[in-house]
Amino acid sequence: MSRPGALFLSEIRGQPDAVGRLLEHTSEYDAVAAEITKRAPAPIRLVGHGSSDAAASYGVYAFGVLAGLTAMRDSISLTTYYGAKLDVSGSAVIALSQPRSALARAAEATLPLLAGPERSVAASKTYVNQLASLALLAGGAAGKIRKIADGLRRVTEQMAEMLDPLDLRAGEIAPAFTYVERMFVIGRGFEFATAREVALKLTETCRVAAEPLTATDLAHGPVAAIEALFPVWAIASHDETLAAVIEATVRARAAGATLVASGSAAAKIPHAAFSLPVPRPPRAAFAPLLSVVAGQLFAAALARAKGLDADHPEQLTKVTLAQ
Amino acid sequence: MSRPGALFLSEIRGQPDAVGRLLEHTSEYDAVAAEITKRAPAPIRLVGHGSSDAAASYGVYAFGVLAGLTAMRDSISLTTYYGAKLDVSGSAVIALSQPRSALARAAEATLPLLAGPERSVAASKTYVNQLASLALLAGGAAGKIRKIADGLRRVTEQMAEMLDPLDLRAGEIAPAFTYVERMFVIGRGFEFATAREVALKLTETCRVAAEPLTATDLAHGPVAAIEALFPVWAIASHDETLAAVIEATVRARAAGATLVASGSAAAKIPHAAFSLPVPRPPRAAFAPLLSVVAGQLFAAALARAKGLDADHPEQLTKVTLAQ
Repeated sequence: MSRPGALFLSEIRGQPDAVGRLLEHTSEYDAVAAEITKRAPAPIRLVGHGSSDAAASYGVYAFGVLAGLTAMRDSISLTTYYGAKLDVSGSAVIALSQPRSALARAAEATLPLLAGPERSVAASKTYVNQLASLALLAGGAAGKIRKIADGLRRVTEQMAEMLDPLDLRAGEIAPAFTYVERMFVIGRGFEFATAREVALKLTETCRVAAEPLTATDLAHGPVAAIEALFPVWAIASHDETLAAVIEATVRARAAGATLVASGSAAAKIPHAAFSLPVPRPPRAAFAPLLSVVAGQLFAAALARAKGLDADHPEQLTKVTLAQ
Repeated sequence: MSRPGALFLSEIRGQPDAVGRLLEHTSEYDAVAAEITKRAPAPIRLVGHGSSDAAASYGVYAFGVLAGLTAMRDSISLTTYYGAKLDVSGSAVIALSQPRSALARAAEATLPLLAGPERSVAASKTYVNQLASLALLAGGAAGKIRKIADGLRRVTEQMAEMLDPLDLRAGEIAPAFTYVERMFVIGRGFEFATAREVALKLTETCRVAAEPLTATDLAHGPVAAIEALFPVWAIASHDETLAAVIEATVRARAAGATLVASGSAAAKIPHAAFSLPVPRPPRAAFAPLLSVVAGQLFAAALARAKGLDADHPEQLTKVTLAQ
């Protein structure tokens, strides 16, 4: 029996190697990307639950920005419950799954995730490898998979270098949040996926009701719920959405929020009480692979501070049968 | 100066008339629906923020189930921030907006919402009229707009009849929630839109951090955050998703949650501490027009119990500039 949360932490730390393993299979991704391109402009349908659905949010931006292709998070319940007769004949469907599953048998092509065994119930390296997979596919669809793979390789180096100092910093910050019960996590564009995944980690491992919001969502209602000391986690990266994220944090701060700034542009968030910056990747599209790690390490540290076992959250199992 | 929350309440009560006004313009909707059908199978792109984005979630199911068309909530930030070069030439774009706006000038066709002036910052009748509009468009695309309009007319009668008893019941229940700070709101399929809109009303008018989740989302992490007395609001309607919603509430109850059951099948939720049932509409696709009213009236009552003014939530204005 390992120390509570030890699996989650070691799997977070295994992410640079996990992405590295994936990059050895770049040519397999390139072949599937070519098939996807053939089916455009029909939308790419991304299907996943939990962390895999957060990764799908990244896929919408990866395909859109890198390849100019429309990808959507598909509403699978249209078919599974209502038997809707949708014309999907021209679409590419990408099913994202962590465990090896029945999906593989139904698929025309199966791509390896290469994350290695993940024994913590809370996902980490499978999520990051899903991001890398989607970046490769989108890069392949744009005819520049080698360039994307090279960039991702550099990201694995940055991730490996940042792990120790970031883990130390997360451990210093987390105890102040021991009695927090609710939180908003703000991200925009590529980083909305990060907001979703960080909120999910905080919810499942730390029992914090953390809700992911875009900068725009926040202004359309949730800002009204903020009061003194309500924590708001902002993911600020160096890209075109930065000004909107900063503006959202200014509004949240004016309402009394305690701001936690993360991402490569964490230093740009005014009046942040806490900061968990990460390096700036070679391309904005790669930022989510680094910024999510700050949230993962913080969740691991907060679970320890709360006396919870991040490896075995209450009420959860690794494989969930989709309803 | 009216009594705090009086505008919100009177606008909620004006919804049957508001939908009635819209139905007088059915033929205009039918004409636009014909145009949309011409552009299929390219996806219908739904664009909206806040309550309009919740209505867009309804649109995904209305177009999918009623007309077999793929509709998606579009990620507008792909274009506005990143300048993604997407091929949208074959798509129909439906922009949902409450105020008359610059959108109207950019559009090929503008359809009237007919909700009448909405002076409460928290939207109600504009939302319900957006649902009715989307049902009409989807019905029109399926060549059965008269049938849909007839069904909606019956829904306005059901809505008018239920208002008094439901308002009374909401007023009895709400005070028990005065000190609640967080909540999950569960819906599935058509009713996920309701979960999003009810969560938004609770957040903006009652300062409760209420997060909308599908039944499946709940099992993939958030259930771990539930503890004794954590309130979970479930929307249970008579359709194919009911079993999944019931199963999610059973898991939530096992984790200690206090269950609030709403929707036409509220009585099917075991161990619900509170219940706000609504009538069963002539068609499952119309259920969200009735079940959202339970959430609106509850939010109005809870805001009163908390001494908050639902008409003028802190930090919010009626028109929000999208970032």
